[in-house]
Order: sequence, then structure tokens, then C-alpha cells
Amino acid sequence: MALLVQKFGGTSVGTVERIEAVGDKIKGFRDKGDDIVVVVSAMSGETNRLIGLANDITDEPTPREMDVLVSTGEQVTIALLSMALNKRGCPARSYTGGQVRITTDDTHTKARILDIDEDKMRSDIEQGRVIVVAGFQGVDEKGNITTLGRGGSDTTAVALAAALKADECQIYTDVDGVYTTDPRVVESAQRLEQITFEEMIEMASLGSKVLQIRSVEFAGKYSVPLRVLSSFKEGPGTLISIDNEGGMEQPLVSGIAFNRDEAKLTLVGVPDIPGIASKILKPVSDQNIELDMIVQNVGVDNCTDFTFTVHRNDYKKALAILEQVCADLGAKQVVGDDTIAKVSIVGVGMRSHAGVATTMFDALSQEGINIQMISTSEIKISVVIDEKYMELAVRTLHTAFDLDKSE
Amino acid sequence: MALLVQKFGGTSVGTVERIEAVGDKIKGFRDKGDDIVVVVSAMSGETNRLIGLANDITDEPTPREMDVLVSTGEQVTIALLSMALNKRGCPARSYTGGQVRITTDDTHTKARILDIDEDKMRSDIEQGRVIVVAGFQGVDEKGNITTLGRGGSDTTAVALAAALKADECQIYTDVDGVYTTDPRVVESAQRLEQITFEEMIEMASLGSKVLQIRSVEFAGKYSVPLRVLSSFKEGPGTLISIDNEGGMEQPLVSGIAFNRDEAKLTLVGVPDIPGIASKILKPVSDQNIELDMIVQNVGVDNCTDFTFTVHRNDYKKALAILEQVCADLGAKQVVGDDTIAKVSIVGVGMRSHAGVATTMFDALSQEGINIQMISTSEIKISVVIDEKYMELAVRTLHTAFDLDKSE
Repeated sequence: MALLVQKFGGTSVGTVERIEAVGDKIKGFRDKGDDIVVVVSAMSGETNRLIGLANDITDEPTPREMDVLVSTGEQVTIALLSMALNKRGCPARSYTGGQVRITTDDTHTKARILDIDEDKMRSDIEQGRVIVVAGFQGVDEKGNITTLGRGGSDTTAVALAAALKADECQIYTDVDGVYTTDPRVVESAQRLEQITFEEMIEMASLGSKVLQIRSVEFAGKYSVPLRVLSSFKEGPGTLISIDNEGGMEQPLVSGIAFNRDEAKLTLVGVPDIPGIASKILKPVSDQNIELDMIVQNVGVDNCTDFTFTVHRNDYKKALAILEQVCADLGAKQVVGDDTIAKVSIVGVGMRSHAGVATTMFDALSQEGINIQMISTSEIKISVVIDEKYMELAVRTLHTAFDLDKSE
Repeated sequence: MALLVQKFGGTSVGTVERIEAVGDKIKGFRDKGDDIVVVVSAMSGETNRLIGLANDITDEPTPREMDVLVSTGEQVTIALLSMALNKRGCPARSYTGGQVRITTDDTHTKARILDIDEDKMRSDIEQGRVIVVAGFQGVDEKGNITTLGRGGSDTTAVALAAALKADECQIYTDVDGVYTTDPRVVESAQRLEQITFEEMIEMASLGSKVLQIRSVEFAGKYSVPLRVLSSFKEGPGTLISIDNEGGMEQPLVSGIAFNRDEAKLTLVGVPDIPGIASKILKPVSDQNIELDMIVQNVGVDNCTDFTFTVHRNDYKKALAILEQVCADLGAKQVVGDDTIAKVSIVGVGMRSHAGVATTMFDALSQEGINIQMISTSEIKISVVIDEKYMELAVRTLHTAFDLDKSE
């Protein structure tokens, strides 16, 4: 007898048949005595269809009206799922973001949740109803419809779980959990039973697409136990929580993340004077280019080399800006490379264990993989390497940190 | 400089191109200085698509959820039209039924409007905004989404016009006004400049499909001048108001209505005792069969004949019920006919002019058309005839009452 908030994404409710299957699943939980609050996304394809209509009218749709438009997608799903549940003798009631009073700020299309009034939901739960809430949407204090931006349904689920102090927030998706690394790259990758919020945030920010980073942060902040499960396959999924209860068995490294979305730029021979970093980076970020890794070498002869990575789509634009910066600052030259990959090891175990970095660098070096940049945080070490070695590096590290599935 | 409430139906906003055309039209009114509140329906086909989704799940969709589902149709249109207006430099803001606080009772799928809070709209109007309201929907006092039933967008428009004391409520549709009769039957049918609420209600109840009868009644009750115009063609349309200002020129008859949706049933030789009408009709109406015309002949030898009409779809069902009633009451026999037509003349002029009925019956008799039933009200005379004479009867009466277009 638990109170569960369950979120089903667009693929899980993509057709009437799948909505019926979700109905069956929820009925099963109700029969076991659990109280259920469901959060759903728009049926897959629907949000894009709506955005298409808006784009047929104008390249610059009014953000307020965009929210009125796309929020209908989830509203359709809540009605259909509630009907499917009622048909199963499982009393259900749908609520839009506005009806359940998910109050947000007024940043249309990217609003942030400020408050949730859970009284109405509690009263429904006490009456034995399943509550079906439209994800991704809310209202501002004036009653205007807002949306939380893509992926916002996960955030809605976590926020509801926090407000209701639910026992668990379960995110149903098309994968059956969080893996030690992408099983398409490393066949022996294993599903993790548990992972901490911090690890999950690092994994997500490093390219693992299972959960929206924002919802994980939110869950961490409010200590909402978060579980990733498959909509289509039975299984316990992966629990994301504060403590990894692995105890003595706790692995040094929980997962290997990677991406080849980035490009690297180096300004060589910059005068090593105070404030130089901001002089170099400000013109780049002024153009809305996001920076990821930033490395500055120790200066020699009052000169230093300055390297950073940007998204590969921004590479050419960043290069042009940097050429100008190079001239302005009297630096030697700009060097760029957009054939790099970033590979990272993530694990809270690193905190209490020395030698993790050494193990990583050794393993890579034994395969002849040259490390171009290094960046570390408390629970993560990232390296930039030539992209052609990416898969090899991931497999090598997966084995080096004992993550391979045992037979 | 008038305050106009304009309603555009599903066909008028059926595609993005048509929504843009509505945008142009409204921009034109704004440029002339009129204040505009727009009410829109769902894009044509959308409501049926949504109902289809529900029916794929269940034959008995929860009414509350049905309203949540279908109300998204109008919500899409208000967002798109507001975007189209904003693009034209015509500041606009969309409102769902709930946002503009159209409060209804809680009869889901067929709710009735109780109240409208017009303050929000007034403030927007004062700020020079066009207000785009979702037709057909509201919320009950608990905040549940309700819909007014099919055609409810007309009612929304009239209710808004009444609440705002608008100068006129304009219903844009695919015809350019109300005609003396259906131009497909009588080529010389004329568009009426004006017609009274009472006449329009009779015309609508007799088969003229231009406006929902409920919205006309509503407009009459609150004296909201109502105008029917074409979305696609310029023109003054037809004004529906309290008084027909035709004065001396006021025609005896304003229009000829007709339908062949009905069937006739007669119970022959019923004992003529008090309460017999209810004994005959109650079993029929208990089965939710609606009765239209009811005629009881003067009794002879303590026996009477009792005739009524029902919708043709209910004919067989009604016949079976009546056979039972016949046996129960000891009547002679049941006679039925589902090849009839009802033709009616409508006009407030009848009130002050004698001889209208005679003119009608004479004209029909001269064409050899036999009258099977007659029913009259203050401003209407209906006759039931063999359906094969329907077109002839309509043309004959159109000429007899001087309604033909002059060359």
C-alpha cells in the first residue's frame, strides 16, 4: 500500500492500444492496493503536429498562445486514459495543469513550477480515485496557461510526488532502466539496480538520455525516490535515490557516459594576465554559445594556452569569434578540432577511493588512446579523446571498472 | 465604433489558410475602429476525430472526460487565431471557457451557461486587444470542464454578447443569410434583410439549419441583435432582432420551412375518454421518442382518432409501441406513414392579418395537394402532406405569399 506517482511518456501513450495497456498496468497497481497519481505526456507526434500548425501561420508564434496550443496535447491523453480506467472499473479523474493548480512563473514555453495545491488530489485519492494529470503544463498566477518546455512531464511527476510526499515517483519509458553505459556500444552493459541523484545528474549531463536532468535535480532537491522503468517490459528498473545502499559492495564507478556532440577550440599563446579567461569567453557566450569543458594550462613566459569545448553545431561560429579574439588580444593562433569525443566515468565511490583517475588513464593508455583534455568533479572524470577511439575507450573503461555483466 | 461579438464556425476555421482569412477579416474591423470579441469552434473534422479516439476506447466514455477531450478542439483554434492576429499587428489574446469564467451547470456534454464574468474581457478590450474565446465550453462551479453540446459555439457568442452588452452578435457561417426558403428547392428564394427572433426560432425548429435554435432563444431573451453572415462572401447577411422594422411593407409571411424527417402514426377508433391522450403518448415518450405534431379529431360515437408525428428514425419503434397501446386500449387499428413531409409558413405578419391560412390551403388545393394534418401557432401554420409533393408545395407557397425574388 504505497502512494505512487507514475509518469508515462509520449511513446507509452502513443496509440489508443497503448493507452489501454497503461490502463491495464495501473489497474494492476490499484488491485494490489496502491494509490496512484498518473502523469501523462501528449500522444507521440501530437506536440509536433500542433507546433507544425503554429509554424504554418507564423515563424514567431506568440509564446503565450503556443502554450495554449501545445497544452491541448496532454489534455487529450488525460481524458482518454481516464476513460480507459473508468472502463476497467477503476474510478479515475483527469486534471489539467491549471485544474490541479500547478502554479508556475510566467515564462511561457519554459515555465518553472512555483507551487502545487495538493488538497484536491488528496481528497480524490481518499475517495479511491486514480488521478490523471496532464504533464508539462501549469498556469501562472494570473491563470494563463504555461508549459514547462520539452521533457517537462518528468518534472511535473516529480513535483507532484514531492507535493504529495509520494513513496516513489516512477518514470515509465521505452528503456528498462539506467545502464552502466549504452548497451548499443557495450554489449555487456548492465542495468543498475540503484544510482544516486548526483550520479544520475552527471550521467544525464554527459549524454545519457534516460531522464531529463531537470527532473532529477528536482527529485534530488526534494528527496523524491525516482524509479525508471519500461512501459513495455516487466522489471524493477533503476531506483534513483539519495543513498546508494550498495554498502561494502558499492562500486567505484557506476557508469560510463560519452558523447560526440562537442568540438574543441584552443587559443594558443595568450598573454597570461588577470581577467584573460573572461576576455576570451565573454564574446563566445554573448553569442549564446554554451561552453562545456574549460581548461587553462599553467602559463610559461607569461603566456598560456586556453582550451574549451562547445556543441559541435556551434563550432564554426565559435571559431570565427575566437579568430577575432585572437587578433584583439595579440595571441599566437587558434586551433580547433571537431572530431573529438568526451568519455566520462561517474560514481559516488570516487569520493572515498583514491586511484580512480590513475586506473582510468592507465586503461586508456594501454590501448594507445591519447587524452587531449581532462576535467574532473567530485564524482566524475571526463576526458576528451579522438572520436575514432570513442567506442574502444568506453569498452575499455567498462571492463577496467568491473562493470561487465557476469555470465 | 461598435463592440461586436463575432463567431466563426468549424468550416470558417477549417484550415490554417482559413484561419488566416478570418485574421484578415477581423483586422479589417479593428482598422475601422470596432472592438472585437471572437468566438471560434474547433477546426472542422477535429471534434469528430477526438470523439473517434474516445470511441476506440469505450462505447460509454465518461461524460466528464469527454468534455475534457473535445474541449481541446476549440483551444487549438483560439491559439492559432490569436497567433494569426498578433502576426497582423492586431494584439489578441486567447481564452478558454474556463479562463473567461463561462460558468455552467454540471450537465457534462450538454451544459447550460449560468454566468459569465466579463471583467477580464473588458479590461483587455480597453487595452485594445481582440479577445479570442473558445466556443462551446465552460466550467462548472467546481472548475470541471463542461461543453454546451454541438452547436454550442453560437450560444457562447450570444452569451458573451449579452454579458458585454455588445452592439451586435455576428454569426459567420457558410451561407450568406437567412432565406425565404431553401434556395436549392426554390431558385427565386430571397435573402431576408431582417427577421424576428420568434420567426427565426420557428424557422429553425422547422428545419432551417442556419442557426442553433438555442442560441436564437438566448439572443431573444437578452435582446441581443443577431446577424448571420457568410465567412466567404461579403454582404450584410440577415439581422435577427426583436422588431421587424419593415413597417407597412412588412410581409405576411417571412419564410417557408420544410422537412421530410418525420413519420405519421394514427390510432384509429380509440375510446374518447378523459386522459386518453396521455395513455397513448406516455408509452411513446417513455421510450425517449420525441413527438412533434399531435392532432386529435373530434370524437364520434364516443370514439376518436389520434394522430401524431415522430422523427422518421423512431418510426418503427413508435409503431411497435402503438400496436401494444392499441391492444391495451381496445382501439380499432394503427395506421402509419413514413412518406410524409411537413411544410410550414412562418411570419409575425399573421398575427395582424386574417386569411393567411385560407391563402395557404387554397394555393395547395389548386395544385391538387391533399393536406393530411394541420397545426398552427401564433406565427406559423404547418401542414403535413405526401412527401412527393413537398417541392411543389414549397414553390407554390413561395409564390402565393409574394416571396419570389423580383427580377
